[in-house]
Amino acid sequence: MCEANAYIIENDEPRLIMEAVDTIEPSDEGLKLVNIFGEQKFVKASIHALSLVDHKVYLKP
Amino acid sequence: MCEANAYIIENDEPRLIMEAVDTIEPSDEGLKLVNIFGEQKFVKASIHALSLVDHKVYLKP
Repeated sequence: MCEANAYIIENDEPRLIMEAVDTIEPSDEGLKLVNIFGEQKFVKASIHALSLVDHKVYLKP
Repeated sequence: MCEANAYIIENDEPRLIMEAVDTIEPSDEGLKLVNIFGEQKFVKASIHALSLVDHKVYLKP
């Protein structure tokens, strides 16, 4: 499986907000994250950068 | 390996612009994509959505 961990970058520090993320798509107020277990999280952020081989997705508020 | 294919969405149609993408990060005029072979591509776009289990990254101009 090629899910990734999602980090939000605040004060130049990445903070883990969700593990095993499958999809990220725009929502009304930012992004909707869904992990491989079907759990959802809404975040006021945009997708900043990816490092897929490292399984990392970086978001910024 | 958990690389993905990058598509740019133009006129509601995704068009493949790079295969086997590892990293995407902001650059001066948009995004720098680097694939697992070390090839680089610069695109005037932002990261719109991800579907990682499907190995797909969607960009928008």
